[in-house]
Amino acid sequence: MVKLNPSFSRLNTEYIFSIIDRKLLELKKKLPSAELINFSIGDIALPIAPSIIKAITQAMEEMGTPEGIKGYGPSIGYDFLRQAIAEKEFNHLGISWEEIFISDGTNSDAVNILDLFSPQTSIGIPNPTYPAYLNSTLLTGRKKILSFPCLPENDFAPLPPQDPCDVIYLCSPNNPTGMAMTTAQLQSWIDYARKHRSLLLIDSAYIAFITSPNVPRSIYELPGAHECAIEMRTFSKSAGFTGLRCAYMVIPKHLTAALNRKKLPLHEFWSKRQGIKFNGVAYPIQKAAEAALSPEGERETKSQVQLYIQVAKRLKRGLQQMGHTCWGGEDAPYIWWKTPHNLTSWDFFDQLLNRCQIICVPGKGFGSCGEGYVRLSAFSSLQQADLALTKIKQL
Amino acid sequence: MVKLNPSFSRLNTEYIFSIIDRKLLELKKKLPSAELINFSIGDIALPIAPSIIKAITQAMEEMGTPEGIKGYGPSIGYDFLRQAIAEKEFNHLGISWEEIFISDGTNSDAVNILDLFSPQTSIGIPNPTYPAYLNSTLLTGRKKILSFPCLPENDFAPLPPQDPCDVIYLCSPNNPTGMAMTTAQLQSWIDYARKHRSLLLIDSAYIAFITSPNVPRSIYELPGAHECAIEMRTFSKSAGFTGLRCAYMVIPKHLTAALNRKKLPLHEFWSKRQGIKFNGVAYPIQKAAEAALSPEGERETKSQVQLYIQVAKRLKRGLQQMGHTCWGGEDAPYIWWKTPHNLTSWDFFDQLLNRCQIICVPGKGFGSCGEGYVRLSAFSSLQQADLALTKIKQL
Repeated sequence: MVKLNPSFSRLNTEYIFSIIDRKLLELKKKLPSAELINFSIGDIALPIAPSIIKAITQAMEEMGTPEGIKGYGPSIGYDFLRQAIAEKEFNHLGISWEEIFISDGTNSDAVNILDLFSPQTSIGIPNPTYPAYLNSTLLTGRKKILSFPCLPENDFAPLPPQDPCDVIYLCSPNNPTGMAMTTAQLQSWIDYARKHRSLLLIDSAYIAFITSPNVPRSIYELPGAHECAIEMRTFSKSAGFTGLRCAYMVIPKHLTAALNRKKLPLHEFWSKRQGIKFNGVAYPIQKAAEAALSPEGERETKSQVQLYIQVAKRLKRGLQQMGHTCWGGEDAPYIWWKTPHNLTSWDFFDQLLNRCQIICVPGKGFGSCGEGYVRLSAFSSLQQADLALTKIKQL
Repeated sequence: MVKLNPSFSRLNTEYIFSIIDRKLLELKKKLPSAELINFSIGDIALPIAPSIIKAITQAMEEMGTPEGIKGYGPSIGYDFLRQAIAEKEFNHLGISWEEIFISDGTNSDAVNILDLFSPQTSIGIPNPTYPAYLNSTLLTGRKKILSFPCLPENDFAPLPPQDPCDVIYLCSPNNPTGMAMTTAQLQSWIDYARKHRSLLLIDSAYIAFITSPNVPRSIYELPGAHECAIEMRTFSKSAGFTGLRCAYMVIPKHLTAALNRKKLPLHEFWSKRQGIKFNGVAYPIQKAAEAALSPEGERETKSQVQLYIQVAKRLKRGLQQMGHTCWGGEDAPYIWWKTPHNLTSWDFFDQLLNRCQIICVPGKGFGSCGEGYVRLSAFSSLQQADLALTKIKQL
């Protein structure tokens, strides 16, 4: 009989979003007329920008003509998009378009990159953070997993360990804490990585939300990053692409790993991996991503990001004025809220849901160090933020 | 230092399409004015159908409104598309929409499904066939790989082995031979799978091209298939989606595999895997796939498939009339051409390229049993087919 991958047994059986769904159903039964304020999911709340719609519509017109036929594209992305990204974001940092690899999402990049490394590779993961890093590492069967706690004591910035670790995920600005690592904090990881010849996987999904001056806008602003860091970025949160799917990964040419005692460039192996396992992102979606980088697209999408930032800041100020303790909300659309009276994540979730009709995410869903916190997502509106604050005041 | 996945050393270093590209460049240098006839790549040659363009355009208009916002969709696909597929293709075969899982390509499905199985799983692969099965199996580090030769002696249909094999890829109609397995041939694999409790992975990418009466249109027409077979289908070749990316996999509820001595349903583990590693296909692309299944979409895309079939049949008849030996072209857009005078694949490729300006693919690129053959792709036009036949006659 066919045997399942035994690593499935290692996954946490508690599926946080299914539990949330069940609790929502229960509430709807008790209070059918309840109007819920949804601060749970990290998903866009504004329509797709006009210039992006126009780009997709034009791409489809093109594909409908004999001259404009587009079949299989390059599995690592069209040059036009790689070049547009490089020109807009990376050329001034010493990164060229050949070092940029298009994909259908940072989630895909962050988990698929594990295919490149030996099964013995040790993997470092912040706690709490985006759960796909840990879940996909567990599924590969890897045994050496280091956890880096993010707590108030360290400003929620993971600290380099004493021992060597091969491959390290860093999510900055972090989901769920909303805290971005400063230049100094990131530099300490680069120094660590160069000393131990580690590789840093920087998930920068929320980079468009950074407002703090001491937080770099790319890891490649920092000396040494070109020798040890991959940066992952997405159009999902910066341009509302969660329902369109386009992201990219920067793999500098200088990054190497060992195979049969030879030092070989990582980007070649990513190209090989993608050539075998992926057939590329749809042409119209890549044209849409290109449009998001145009002056018009940038203006439109930046105003959306601005709105989410306003919502985050209003929520955070409001909570703080009531005497609550919370973090984030300056460089990311997430508020990390310490539960009052040391309630557990789930107990406080229940209170907010049943007494304020507010849906949040229990921090525990992002790792053991998330216990005692909840995450509020600011992908919402100022009206909803004000309504929520009024209800919380009455709590 | 970070170590690469040692399985990369197992991949064939000869990248067939890079060699073809190099040879094309050489020819262009020698004969700059040469007009090439491209029968190499298995990619569409006709524009996207109007109803598909319309569906994407409408989906984008929808996403541009506050009421029509679509963020993250289900990682296994929207219910509307799963239901449309089930209704059109599977309900009469006892398959429900919950057993259908949307993805961005059959290539992705065929390689990602390996994540579900234990590292000790033995994998069976026809020879020659689509190279991603073998390459992705090699990358996972699996050691037990069985090869099933497809030769004139067995009508290019792989035969079940004497020994047990856990998971078996079957590509029918087959790329590159263009030969589809008959009901009797597929039934022998189902009987084998039920006896040995194996799992069949049926890649049906070219199912829309079947014209032979004794070839089933779905594996689920055959008794027992629901207990042992996954069917993979794509909109790539049936509706010209190679540049849009949408496919699906049927995982019947009855399919089980073992974990900790329990028999568990495979479809649950695929859902878990996709939930962790994939964020779904873009909403407008899923709407486009739905449109391809509408009466209008079906009429438009079927006429495209008809044209490719005509090209295939004309090429095949023409070659046979000249006394050449070739197969396929009845149930798939590929002609499998025995090289004259026992030339090697590459020697005949060179002759066709340099003396007829025809680009084919050397059969060896699809496996050792492809040596002595070349593949002609009929994703072309009748004019190109006639021109090619004239040139081949002069050879």
